[in-house]
Amino acid sequence: MNVDLFSNLSPIDHRYRNTYPELHENLGRYLDERAAIRYQIQAELALLKAHMLRQGKELSTIEHELAGIEIDPEEVYREEEKTRHNIRALVNVLVEKVPEAYRRYVHLGATSMDIVDTANAMRLRDAMQQVVLPQLGRLQNSLIVLAENEAATPQVGRTHGQFAVPVTFGFAIASYVSRLGQSLEALSRLSADLRGKLAGAVGAYNALSLITDRPREMERQYLDLLGLSAAEYSSQIVMPEYQLRLLLELNTAFGIIANLADDLRHLQRSEIDEVREYFSPTQVGSSTMPQKRNPWNCEHVKSLWKTFSPRIMSFYMDQISEHQRDLSNSASARFVADFVAGFSFAAERMHSIVSKLGVSRKHLQHNLKRLGDLVLAEPLYILLSLGGVRDAHEVVRRLTLQREESGRPLPELLSEEPELQKVVQVQLAKVGYDASFLSSPEQYLGRSEQRTQELCRQYRTRLQQLGLAQ
Amino acid sequence: MNVDLFSNLSPIDHRYRNTYPELHENLGRYLDERAAIRYQIQAELALLKAHMLRQGKELSTIEHELAGIEIDPEEVYREEEKTRHNIRALVNVLVEKVPEAYRRYVHLGATSMDIVDTANAMRLRDAMQQVVLPQLGRLQNSLIVLAENEAATPQVGRTHGQFAVPVTFGFAIASYVSRLGQSLEALSRLSADLRGKLAGAVGAYNALSLITDRPREMERQYLDLLGLSAAEYSSQIVMPEYQLRLLLELNTAFGIIANLADDLRHLQRSEIDEVREYFSPTQVGSSTMPQKRNPWNCEHVKSLWKTFSPRIMSFYMDQISEHQRDLSNSASARFVADFVAGFSFAAERMHSIVSKLGVSRKHLQHNLKRLGDLVLAEPLYILLSLGGVRDAHEVVRRLTLQREESGRPLPELLSEEPELQKVVQVQLAKVGYDASFLSSPEQYLGRSEQRTQELCRQYRTRLQQLGLAQ
Amino acid sequence: MNVDLFSNLSPIDHRYRNTYPELHENLGRYLDERAAIRYQIQAELALLKAHMLRQGKELSTIEHELAGIEIDPEEVYREEEKTRHNIRALVNVLVEKVPEAYRRYVHLGATSMDIVDTANAMRLRDAMQQVVLPQLGRLQNSLIVLAENEAATPQVGRTHGQFAVPVTFGFAIASYVSRLGQSLEALSRLSADLRGKLAGAVGAYNALSLITDRPREMERQYLDLLGLSAAEYSSQIVMPEYQLRLLLELNTAFGIIANLADDLRHLQRSEIDEVREYFSPTQVGSSTMPQKRNPWNCEHVKSLWKTFSPRIMSFYMDQISEHQRDLSNSASARFVADFVAGFSFAAERMHSIVSKLGVSRKHLQHNLKRLGDLVLAEPLYILLSLGGVRDAHEVVRRLTLQREESGRPLPELLSEEPELQKVVQVQLAKVGYDASFLSSPEQYLGRSEQRTQELCRQYRTRLQQLGLAQ
Amino acid sequence: MNVDLFSNLSPIDHRYRNTYPELHENLGRYLDERAAIRYQIQAELALLKAHMLRQGKELSTIEHELAGIEIDPEEVYREEEKTRHNIRALVNVLVEKVPEAYRRYVHLGATSMDIVDTANAMRLRDAMQQVVLPQLGRLQNSLIVLAENEAATPQVGRTHGQFAVPVTFGFAIASYVSRLGQSLEALSRLSADLRGKLAGAVGAYNALSLITDRPREMERQYLDLLGLSAAEYSSQIVMPEYQLRLLLELNTAFGIIANLADDLRHLQRSEIDEVREYFSPTQVGSSTMPQKRNPWNCEHVKSLWKTFSPRIMSFYMDQISEHQRDLSNSASARFVADFVAGFSFAAERMHSIVSKLGVSRKHLQHNLKRLGDLVLAEPLYILLSLGGVRDAHEVVRRLTLQREESGRPLPELLSEEPELQKVVQVQLAKVGYDASFLSSPEQYLGRSEQRTQELCRQYRTRLQQLGLAQ
Repeated sequence: MNVDLFSNLSPIDHRYRNTYPELHENLGRYLDERAAIRYQIQAELALLKAHMLRQGKELSTIEHELAGIEIDPEEVYREEEKTRHNIRALVNVLVEKVPEAYRRYVHLGATSMDIVDTANAMRLRDAMQQVVLPQLGRLQNSLIVLAENEAATPQVGRTHGQFAVPVTFGFAIASYVSRLGQSLEALSRLSADLRGKLAGAVGAYNALSLITDRPREMERQYLDLLGLSAAEYSSQIVMPEYQLRLLLELNTAFGIIANLADDLRHLQRSEIDEVREYFSPTQVGSSTMPQKRNPWNCEHVKSLWKTFSPRIMSFYMDQISEHQRDLSNSASARFVADFVAGFSFAAERMHSIVSKLGVSRKHLQHNLKRLGDLVLAEPLYILLSLGGVRDAHEVVRRLTLQREESGRPLPELLSEEPELQKVVQVQLAKVGYDASFLSSPEQYLGRSEQRTQELCRQYRTRLQQLGLAQ
Repeated sequence: MNVDLFSNLSPIDHRYRNTYPELHENLGRYLDERAAIRYQIQAELALLKAHMLRQGKELSTIEHELAGIEIDPEEVYREEEKTRHNIRALVNVLVEKVPEAYRRYVHLGATSMDIVDTANAMRLRDAMQQVVLPQLGRLQNSLIVLAENEAATPQVGRTHGQFAVPVTFGFAIASYVSRLGQSLEALSRLSADLRGKLAGAVGAYNALSLITDRPREMERQYLDLLGLSAAEYSSQIVMPEYQLRLLLELNTAFGIIANLADDLRHLQRSEIDEVREYFSPTQVGSSTMPQKRNPWNCEHVKSLWKTFSPRIMSFYMDQISEHQRDLSNSASARFVADFVAGFSFAAERMHSIVSKLGVSRKHLQHNLKRLGDLVLAEPLYILLSLGGVRDAHEVVRRLTLQREESGRPLPELLSEEPELQKVVQVQLAKVGYDASFLSSPEQYLGRSEQRTQELCRQYRTRLQQLGLAQ
Repeated sequence: MNVDLFSNLSPIDHRYRNTYPELHENLGRYLDERAAIRYQIQAELALLKAHMLRQGKELSTIEHELAGIEIDPEEVYREEEKTRHNIRALVNVLVEKVPEAYRRYVHLGATSMDIVDTANAMRLRDAMQQVVLPQLGRLQNSLIVLAENEAATPQVGRTHGQFAVPVTFGFAIASYVSRLGQSLEALSRLSADLRGKLAGAVGAYNALSLITDRPREMERQYLDLLGLSAAEYSSQIVMPEYQLRLLLELNTAFGIIANLADDLRHLQRSEIDEVREYFSPTQVGSSTMPQKRNPWNCEHVKSLWKTFSPRIMSFYMDQISEHQRDLSNSASARFVADFVAGFSFAAERMHSIVSKLGVSRKHLQHNLKRLGDLVLAEPLYILLSLGGVRDAHEVVRRLTLQREESGRPLPELLSEEPELQKVVQVQLAKVGYDASFLSSPEQYLGRSEQRTQELCRQYRTRLQQLGLAQ
Repeated sequence: MNVDLFSNLSPIDHRYRNTYPELHENLGRYLDERAAIRYQIQAELALLKAHMLRQGKELSTIEHELAGIEIDPEEVYREEEKTRHNIRALVNVLVEKVPEAYRRYVHLGATSMDIVDTANAMRLRDAMQQVVLPQLGRLQNSLIVLAENEAATPQVGRTHGQFAVPVTFGFAIASYVSRLGQSLEALSRLSADLRGKLAGAVGAYNALSLITDRPREMERQYLDLLGLSAAEYSSQIVMPEYQLRLLLELNTAFGIIANLADDLRHLQRSEIDEVREYFSPTQVGSSTMPQKRNPWNCEHVKSLWKTFSPRIMSFYMDQISEHQRDLSNSASARFVADFVAGFSFAAERMHSIVSKLGVSRKHLQHNLKRLGDLVLAEPLYILLSLGGVRDAHEVVRRLTLQREESGRPLPELLSEEPELQKVVQVQLAKVGYDASFLSSPEQYLGRSEQRTQELCRQYRTRLQQLGLAQ
């Protein structure tokens, strides 16, 4: 049934679909309603195969006989108008398409949720493995490239929005390499651990026990055909925590990406201007202020996070299902697709931001210079303490006050107290610095560069191990 | 641009659109992307008119000259590919369509958000007034009808899921007449109080001050043409609380409907079975257990509440916009449409449940009978106290224990203590009951019927005052 | 029972209690457990009075006879260990303290929730009216003072974190005067509209109907004595929306304060430095970087918002109570006190930030200057359009490009195109500006100052009307 | 500083502290403000030791010299009034208590968060390992005992609140054995993986690089002394996801417990009455309806879940910290203690419910009987299908209709169609059932008992492996 794209109500299905048609289509392969039904048919067919295998038929024969079955979602929806039950509708349609000898085994021994939950586990797994994880792999790769490129580029550190001691810009980005990297691994693991079931109406294999004396075996066979394991426990439904943990981790990755968006957003403030999103030549910043170049992509990512992150509460609420299940997740479970799509659009945008990010070393340098000798307060106090000066913290506080009153830089004030200066130089030498250290914040970088390199190397390998290297 | 309905990712745009095509279309008139652009054009044209009126032109002339302008969303989207700015794109397209003399006034003095926020206020107001409030009016009406029909039908009261003292089923429903009724009035008031703006890029009328020395007057004119008032304060955007309060109240109404869904769901439990959702003759309850008739519509409503209710956090988060605004609500603001639609689908379903609800007076009666003389503990204690018996609570506790041990009903036990029985009869007579009161819980209904009737009468009138009577 | 303050688990009861002992004590007067019980006793006594008044006793006599009754929470808790029911415990203790003639009327006709819900309505109302609203009044007053002081102080406007056109700092603050002002009025209204009940175990006045033939009248009397109105509908409990709407609005006010905190936090960034929180002479900014002066109070307020704001979901969830009520709000309802306290601590901190805020006009001026002639793009385009220049937007874009390439300021470039310059001057004159406008962004302030003054005047009056003027 | 317990505002610190004083005290050992400071001192001392070890001193000597240092929280709070910085206050107090030779090394090279985050990791780990995990172990054990006791007790299965096919009550409980068991293992793993840091003000080891050329080594030493590993990446703070994932899992366990509470709550409905919470002889159910025995403990657990579960959003929001950190988690991070306590109180209550749960086999039996021959629809259809009957589903639907119209039981109707009856008997025999199967739902239990036993055995072992067996 064709509809006008602009008649859709969800931004995912009009605006974002329009912006990233390819991504929308890729997601749709697993998450749209057509996919929902296709996966359910796959599950029903696996059940049919399990029945036949149980009776000693060869798998290749079965597959030959069942080949080419295709069902249009509209057929199912039409039938559902009558049954008001989506799986019964599907079964009614399917029965008509399988060979006569198979008919009585269609859906036999299963309850709807044996099909639905199993199909959902498959398509969520596939959406993650075929779309989302590769996307995150690309994003992670672009972060690594950026971090490596800027591994040695000094940047003023900022805590509480205040100048602190320096880092490198690469080191700041390495934070996301590490955080996103860990989340990526968790997502990969959890996606591969979604579960299916064939335990029947209340999870106790009641129906299957009439068919076979080894019902757990038959469940295993059914799920093997679909590449899944069985839930440790099922009621009418797969216990909700397998999927929940994946969604929680997805929201965790969302938070990491939103943090990155916020950082980049602030670094684009007019007063800071250290990075810039790519801005095309024909692009307009404001309908009324032609000079503006807004960080609208970062804003968009942050905004998607605000939109989707609270939905995690719906998934937590869906843990509660009365007795062998109530159906009060009938709608909310359908919105898992929406949630994954929302995340995926945010990840795509973030990849595009990072991979085309403009970095202004000039402004990075400029801002660092504004830190000036203020940065020395911390090292001075440490060096003096190490050199055995009593109350070094107090000594430095005194010098700082002098500096504020006189406006003279700390190195100059220090040169008037030769014994202190001496101590400082001796201590500096021990860790490989000379006197110039005292006038250049860009030397006080700690292990910024080294840690950046180590983390990038490490995560390149880990990406490879996940099969996600570029 | 046409797309397959089943290729959409949001259930609102495939499954629910398919179930309620008319409702989806009605909502779309105000909330889809086509509507978004249509309302923005309306706002741009109002601005143009305000410019012309300022120059002394007649409104009728202006409207004649601007008549028939139509813009397809696709044109705007195509232009946006170039500008990467949706309102600049709209303006570029619009300029080409207005008469030459008007061109230089298109968008003049406005910032994008003067158009966007104003258009959004209008379409949210219209979606509420044209779709949602009438829906709630119908739901309210069906609740009133149900409450009146069952105003005198005794039902066992339940607190903590335990039998308490009796009510009538109508009285239980009257709870929702009152709660939804109040919410409906609040929604009506808040929908009519959404605001627009023409205060420019930072809200201080900077641009407008170059055009007129009475910029607030021009803003008023612009908004008058659109049926809106101006926000008391605007930065680049209308202050968020006007819209927020409406959404909060919508979520409040959602909670009320969800509570009703839960009540009806539980009253359909096999062990209780006092009400039933309508079940069509061809409908299937379970794909494997043919006897089942599940309360799936109530479950659906509850599930929609779980899906949408937590999104209120996104709207709260969007209160925070840095300085004269950041754009970190670029996506989240678009999902207001989604939220309103989610609510609207739930309200529709609830209306269909209530208006076709089957009520089993037989089972209501049966369950009330199970309460039996247990219900007498409360009135006995009260009547004895009123009659001056000391420690009446203790006396009744003793009788209750006797009852448990002996299995003999309280009235019988009471008859063995004539002086107590006397007191009870005297007190009963004072409030118009005779001795039969002691053996029939259905007489202990308090003001259930009367309050139900009063509330229903009252809300019929209030619905009329809102223009929502059926 | 005495406990060590530092052995408490909730920060509200150790750290914040320690910081603001007086505020904690004031809140405690209404919200601590002692207050909970005191209010419940007040409700029980009102019920007793209503019984006596019904029998024709004089109120003054009754009050004389009941004077001086005091109950220690520990007595009640000790009794509760036996009854496992808090109100039955309270009643047992109370009965012992009233004159013999009153005893049989204690709690007569009431269910626990007639007492508990009524008492909670009272104490929430009192906490709002006695503590929170006056606090917000002081905060509002300090915002007005700040806005008025800085009504004419130019500040660069910022949208998307990018320089936009100018405002005044007072105008930026006026945003909060308006937003908080509206919220304050809503809070005042909603606090005065909390409701009580005396409708008995299931809300139908079953028990009261045995005592009087006008039970609604007796409920009114009971509540009159406590300064409350009756809920329009009660089940076992007052319908939840009266309280919910107050809490939603409290969270709305929380969002407004959090937005202010975020704004002030960013204005304190090292690169911006337009305002500073008060910093005491002995205060330490960082344990290792002595130069730092962090905006830790603003951070604290934002953090409290992050802590408390999501709890609104608990209150929404508590709308759902099965049938005549379940008790699944037994704990969550108790945390309303916590929520109000969290808000109150945030408001207190914000008042202290605003009333002692350091404003650096020097830095405000400095940042505005960085905007330079960039600000002219918008007015130039408007003035040229008004003056009849075709494609004015394109003309300005060309000038802007020239400016970027040549580095020469826009006024200079404009002087080379005398006919354009002429148009601009003519148009400027019409709105009362001379040529200097083109080189000074601080003249392009629109109605910043005027709107600020208007809003401040207006809200001073509105504060007075609320009885909250300083 | 002593305060009255009833003057606290948080229910955790008055009501629940009063109910479970021992649990509150145990939690306090790790989570109260006294503990916060004690752990920070432990971290500061570890840093001091690391300095001394670096200089070649023996650990035993160092520990001897630092033995017996004790600091009262009040000392620190008094000092903080001056410094307005909690860690600088702590350091000032500590410096006075260490031997002269150590003084200059106190806090040297650390930033506050090296201490605070490390201390928080330790105390959260300890609270989990010493209090919460053992609690959950006890709860899990009581669930196992209950499941084993009732492994063979038939219960009617319920889906959508409607009678479905049977399970055993033990099998229903086994759901929680499996779900809670998996969560317990995840909690154990995540608690052991909380991380510390000594990476300095911006995470790049700037300060430490002045002290040693192997700063990562020194960080390792510091953390070894405290039993922690270093975060893979730190900015000023430990990356938030280590702690976040633990809290997410805690909330997952909370949802599982809430689901159990809801199940038990509903099973206590008057109409169902299959289980009962323990009710002490002196306990009162209602202040006005003496007969009531409410499931108030289950309601309490559900209510705690509603109170605490939405707070997970605060923790997600705290992922976002600008640049090398902002302090907008200053308050919210403190409420982690509150959250853990809330969960712990819920777990305690649930343990007490489960371990004293009354199970009414009589009512379980009674309710199952109401299912009657309705349960046969599913097996009949399966057996007929297996036996080669065409359209078996249709055949059964016809029989069901006959049954509804005639009121005659299915076995009777079946006996009138001997060929069908024959098929059924043959198929039944294949899976070991005789004809009585058709009149006794308690035979249609599938693998309920067996799966229950397997899961219980498995989780006994797994509890042992976690060191949590009883």
